[in-house]
Amino acid sequence: MSFYTQILITLFIIFASEAKFLPKKCNSCKALLGDDLIKEIASYENVKNEIFKYVLEGDFKSKTYDELEKFVDKFGARPSGSQVLEDSIDYMIQLTREEEINDIVTEELEVPHWIRGTEKITMLEPRVKEIDLLGLGRSVTTPPEGITAEVVVVKNFEELSELSNKDVDGKIVLYDPIFTSYGETVVYRTQGAARAAEKGAVASLVRSIAPFSINSPHTGSQTYNENFEKIPAAAISLEDADLLRRIYNRGEKIVLNMTMSSTYESKTSRNTIIDLKGRDNPEKLVIVSGHIDSWDVGQGAMDDGGGLFVSWAAPVIMKRLNLRPKRTVRSIFWTAEELGLIGAYAYEEKHRNESHNINFIMESDEGTFTPLGLIVAGTQKARCIIAEILKLFKSINASTLVESDSPGSDISVIIRNGIPGASLHNANERYFWFHHTEGDTMNVESPEELDLCTAFWTAVTYIIADISVDIPR
Amino acid sequence: MSFYTQILITLFIIFASEAKFLPKKCNSCKALLGDDLIKEIASYENVKNEIFKYVLEGDFKSKTYDELEKFVDKFGARPSGSQVLEDSIDYMIQLTREEEINDIVTEELEVPHWIRGTEKITMLEPRVKEIDLLGLGRSVTTPPEGITAEVVVVKNFEELSELSNKDVDGKIVLYDPIFTSYGETVVYRTQGAARAAEKGAVASLVRSIAPFSINSPHTGSQTYNENFEKIPAAAISLEDADLLRRIYNRGEKIVLNMTMSSTYESKTSRNTIIDLKGRDNPEKLVIVSGHIDSWDVGQGAMDDGGGLFVSWAAPVIMKRLNLRPKRTVRSIFWTAEELGLIGAYAYEEKHRNESHNINFIMESDEGTFTPLGLIVAGTQKARCIIAEILKLFKSINASTLVESDSPGSDISVIIRNGIPGASLHNANERYFWFHHTEGDTMNVESPEELDLCTAFWTAVTYIIADISVDIPR
Repeated sequence: MSFYTQILITLFIIFASEAKFLPKKCNSCKALLGDDLIKEIASYENVKNEIFKYVLEGDFKSKTYDELEKFVDKFGARPSGSQVLEDSIDYMIQLTREEEINDIVTEELEVPHWIRGTEKITMLEPRVKEIDLLGLGRSVTTPPEGITAEVVVVKNFEELSELSNKDVDGKIVLYDPIFTSYGETVVYRTQGAARAAEKGAVASLVRSIAPFSINSPHTGSQTYNENFEKIPAAAISLEDADLLRRIYNRGEKIVLNMTMSSTYESKTSRNTIIDLKGRDNPEKLVIVSGHIDSWDVGQGAMDDGGGLFVSWAAPVIMKRLNLRPKRTVRSIFWTAEELGLIGAYAYEEKHRNESHNINFIMESDEGTFTPLGLIVAGTQKARCIIAEILKLFKSINASTLVESDSPGSDISVIIRNGIPGASLHNANERYFWFHHTEGDTMNVESPEELDLCTAFWTAVTYIIADISVDIPR
Repeated sequence: MSFYTQILITLFIIFASEAKFLPKKCNSCKALLGDDLIKEIASYENVKNEIFKYVLEGDFKSKTYDELEKFVDKFGARPSGSQVLEDSIDYMIQLTREEEINDIVTEELEVPHWIRGTEKITMLEPRVKEIDLLGLGRSVTTPPEGITAEVVVVKNFEELSELSNKDVDGKIVLYDPIFTSYGETVVYRTQGAARAAEKGAVASLVRSIAPFSINSPHTGSQTYNENFEKIPAAAISLEDADLLRRIYNRGEKIVLNMTMSSTYESKTSRNTIIDLKGRDNPEKLVIVSGHIDSWDVGQGAMDDGGGLFVSWAAPVIMKRLNLRPKRTVRSIFWTAEELGLIGAYAYEEKHRNESHNINFIMESDEGTFTPLGLIVAGTQKARCIIAEILKLFKSINASTLVESDSPGSDISVIIRNGIPGASLHNANERYFWFHHTEGDTMNVESPEELDLCTAFWTAVTYIIADISVDIPR
C-alpha cells in the first residue's frame, strides 16, 4: 500500500473515531451542576492563568522538555526488570526531593524481565532477503539453528479459522491486518501466536501495528494460551509484510529461516508514589500518572517519558507556586506497564481497601503532543464537572471532552472498579508511527508542546483537587 | 529536533525552493516561437488525450505499478556490480522484447562492486548504547576489533576547520548538519571522510541526509581524497546524531567502538539502450531514462524503480498505440548510478562524437509521485518550447517549468555539454524520507501516481520527438 493510501486511511480513522467519541451534548449539565458550582469552576481562571504564565513564560518554560531530555539521554530504554529502570526510578525520586517534596514512597513488586537476544529472519525462497523483525514480549526462543518453515499469510482470525489444521501445521503464520485503529488491530499482536499455535503453527509473525513505516518493526506484548504450545512470535515491518503477502498471493512458496533468542526471568521493581498533601482532605486523592518503564527499543521518550514528566511536573509546579489544593495530589510512576500493566495491577490490589479515597485518576500514556482536552470515564455528572473545567482551556483549544469507558492503559485497572478518571487527549495522529520502535526518541518531542501539556495537566489537576465537590461516582 | 520542527523546516525549504525556481516570466516566448509553432504544439492535444486515455483508463492502467511491483519483488536491491543487477537487466530486455521492440543494445563498462559486511557501532561512554548505521559507498573497513575512539561533533566544515589538528587527531568526527536541501547538505556525506582524514580523524560519521526519520540511517556515495588516509565512513540516524550532539554539548566525553567490514572490486555491467526508431529522422534522439541499479538497502522501488519503469513505458506505449514520432525515442537504463553516475559517464564518452544528435534528454530519478511538470535546462527558446508543450498538461496540474542548469543526476553528465534536457518535476516532498534507506520499497509507490507519471512522460516525449523543430541549443 502506498503511504498516501496509508495516510488517507489514518485520516479517516482519526476523523471517524473523533466523530464516534464526540462528547454527547450535555444539555442537562447546567441543571446537574447548578449555578454556584459553575461559578466556582469559572473562578479558577486566575489560578489557571498563574500556572500557564509560570510554565509558558516563567521559570518552568522548557523545563519539562529539558528534564525529559536529560533523563532520556542518561538512561535510554528502561525495560521492565532491568537495573537501568531501577536507576531511573532512583533518579526521579532524587529529582523530586530536590524540589523539597518528600512524601515519596516506593512499593515493590515482581515484574517480568524479558531480554531480547539475537533476532534474524532470512527469506530463503523465492529469493534470499533479510527481513527486519522485533520479537514480541515474552516470546520463546527458537533452536539455535532457527526454524525453517513455509509461510501462510492470513488477513485476520477468520481467515485463519477457515484453514484446516493441515494447512497450518508446521508452518509460520503471518498476520497482515491493515491498521485501522490500535485497539482493533493490536489483537493480532497480542493473541496471534496463541491462535496460530492452536492450529499447529511453529511460529507467528505479525505486520507491525502501525499506520506508517520506514521499514520500522514495532514490538509489543503478547500472551500465550497455556493450553497450546508456546511458539516464537515477532513483528515485521509493513513493507516486508506487504511483500510477503504479494508473493503469497502470486502462489509462490515462501520459506523463512527464523532465529530468536531471549532470556526471561522475574525481578523486583517499584511503583513510585509522590504526594503533595491536601490542606483540607489529605486522605482524598487526585492521581496523575505515567509509566517509567519502556520497551527495550528506542529511548522511551514518547512512551512514556512525556507522560511521566508532565505527571512529575504537576505537584512540583504546585509546590513551587505554593498552590496547596484541598485534596492530596498524588503522582504515580507506574512500573512494568509494557509487559501488561503489572505495576498498576499491583497498586490496585494493594490499595483496594482505600479505593474510595480516589476522587479522580489521570494518566498520560498516548503522547504529549499539543493538548486537546481529556478522555473521560465517569457518570454524567462527573463528566459535566470535567467539561465545565475544560471550558477554562478554550484559549489553547484544549476544551474537548471525549467520552470513553476505559481511558488510558494503567488507570483502566482502577477505572473498571467504577472510579472516575481521564487520560490526556492530544494531537497524537503520529503516535503509532513511533510507538514501540527504535524511533521513540527525543526527536518526537517538542518543548512547546510539552509546556502546553504540563500547564494544562497541572491546572486541571489543581482544580479537580481543590473544588468544593468531590467527583461523583 | 522535534518532527514538527523538521516538518516546518521541510515545508519552508519546499516553498523557498519553489519560489527560487519559479520559471522566469516568458514574455518573449510568443515572439520566439511564433504563432505557427504555438498552433502546432496545441495540435498535439488529441495525441496527448489518446495516450492519457490508454494509460489512465485503458489497457495500460496500473501497468507501470504492476510491472514495477513484479520487478522489485523478484529482484529486490540491485547494487552496482552484483549478479542480481545483471539478471534484472536481462529481465528488462526480455520484457521489452515481449513488446516487439527489438532495437535493444547493451554497452559494457567496468563498475565498482562494493559489498557491505558487518556494521556495528556501540557507544561505550557515557553509557552503552547500540547505534544503527549504514556504511557509505566505497568505505574502507576497520580492523576486526573495530576502532575505539572519542567523538568530536561539528555542524559544518567551518567548525571542523576551526579545530586544531590536535583536537581531531585520533578521533571520530561526527558531522551533524541540519537538512536544508539535499544539494546543500549532501557534501557532508560525500566529502566528510576526506575532510576529516585531512585533520587526522580515524573515522567519519554523518547525520543522515534527510529531513525526517524513524531512526533510519541513509547510505550514499562518498569520495576519498587520495592525498590523505582513507578512513571508515558511515551515516547514522537523525535521532542518534542529535543524541550525540546533546551529550557532546553537555561536555561529556563520548567514546564509540565502530566495526565495519566490506569488500570492493571491479565488475562488468551494462547500460541498456532501447530505440523506437523515428520515421523521418531516426538519427535524431529524444532520450528518456532512469537508472536500474539501486543501493543495497531497501528495494530500489523509488530510487529508481519508478523512473526506470516510466522510461521503459514511453516507447512501449508509443509502439502499442502505433505512434511513431519523427525522431527516435531512445530509452536508457543507466547502470551504476549510485556509485557516481558510472554508466552515464561511460555513455557520454562512448557517444561523444554523436552528441549533436541528441535533440533532448530526459531523466526521472527524483521520485514518481504526482507529476507537476519538468525541470529544464536549455536556452530561452528551448525552455519556451517546453513551456508551450507543458501547457497541454494543465488538466492534471503538470504545467510547471522549473529552470535549472543541471537537472537530474545521470543526464547532468550530458547536459553540461550544452545539450538541452529535463528531469521529472513531481510532488516528491517525502522523497528524502526514504532515499537510500531500507524504506525504499513498493509501499512508497502508488498505481495512480505512476499512471499519471507514465502518461505525462510518454506524451511529453512523443511531442518533443515529433514536432517540426529541433530543440535549439
